[in-house]
Amino acid sequence: MKNKNRIFITIEGGEGAGKSTHCRLLKRYFETCGRTCVLTREPGGTKSSESIRKILLHPQSNIFPLTELFLYEADRAQHIQEIVLPALKQGKVVICDRFIDATVAYQGYGRKIDLKIIEQLNKIASFALKPALTIYLDIDAKRGLNNAKKLNKESYGLSGDRIERESALFHSNVRKGYLSQSKKEPKRIKVIKTQKTAQETHNLIREEIKKCLKIY
Amino acid sequence: MKNKNRIFITIEGGEGAGKSTHCRLLKRYFETCGRTCVLTREPGGTKSSESIRKILLHPQSNIFPLTELFLYEADRAQHIQEIVLPALKQGKVVICDRFIDATVAYQGYGRKIDLKIIEQLNKIASFALKPALTIYLDIDAKRGLNNAKKLNKESYGLSGDRIERESALFHSNVRKGYLSQSKKEPKRIKVIKTQKTAQETHNLIREEIKKCLKIY
Repeated sequence: MKNKNRIFITIEGGEGAGKSTHCRLLKRYFETCGRTCVLTREPGGTKSSESIRKILLHPQSNIFPLTELFLYEADRAQHIQEIVLPALKQGKVVICDRFIDATVAYQGYGRKIDLKIIEQLNKIASFALKPALTIYLDIDAKRGLNNAKKLNKESYGLSGDRIERESALFHSNVRKGYLSQSKKEPKRIKVIKTQKTAQETHNLIREEIKKCLKIY
Repeated sequence: MKNKNRIFITIEGGEGAGKSTHCRLLKRYFETCGRTCVLTREPGGTKSSESIRKILLHPQSNIFPLTELFLYEADRAQHIQEIVLPALKQGKVVICDRFIDATVAYQGYGRKIDLKIIEQLNKIASFALKPALTIYLDIDAKRGLNNAKKLNKESYGLSGDRIERESALFHSNVRKGYLSQSKKEPKRIKVIKTQKTAQETHNLIREEIKKCLKIY
């Protein structure tokens, strides 16, 4: 290992793109390299933020887009102080399933909240911390949604959770948001097309990590 | 009645200053003047914001000051869109128990969050709406806390809720925050010393309303 410095990586992607799988595979990869790795996610990841997640994702929640935005930022403020910053300080690798770019994509491009407001709130809630590398898993929105629906049938019943029930147009806008972000910050955000198998996609992710972080 | 325009009044004050009582008395007053009046509060007031309130006020909540701030703003964003703005649009009088100034006092002066951040978030969450008049009920902090503890014994047990268990210094800083706000915006924020009886205090509030809003 050339570099023992703190590493903060985020995995982004639309519904059913395989984020959880790739977070786990990535954690295993870093562990085989001898690093201690914390796997976490937004929204959620802390005790109190699980309560926030419940409000956010409940199908009956009748919340406005701006309320939703503030709740995501509340969750982020808690998560970053309770989990992310302490782990990085201890020299651990932190892999986070969704972070600031998700807010730009979902609340900005999806729900049409002013991007400047999102940028402001993201910065405050994250203490201006940016990931060293962000992987955006790019999957055809329709295929991804079908994957997600299958996975979530047990948790939320047939109709899926609140976010997943949004229209195809919404999800297509979310994808546009991610792609536009990756163009704005091409050094940090890498777009990876999901392949036929998870292992093939994982190999591409590993290549990016080697190239971008210049480690392992 | 000279003026049928929308009227938005907020009542502020430390713990146990008698805000709920004065909100009710004020509502009755406007109703005897022939106005339809909506009495509401922050945090709370809407179905989904009651869930937020639960996270905020639960004694076991281990949340950071910034998380708390975002949760209050989430609640505000929901409350203003669901309750306050529609009621004002319908020509109703809206009386709100706590609003933006409470965030400055509690999160800014109490928890020491940067006042500029609070100002930014307050403005976004409230759609830049400011009350026509804000009454700050000024009570000796210690006396107020004793009042509040008595009132809340049944709801939260002997030790009081999370906010009320804060130190005397915290509550003294909150008071400083309110007084400082009233100096910054003397036309909008009126400081009223609580009197021996609720009726005496209410009479002072009515005088301010007549003077400031030039109505009734």
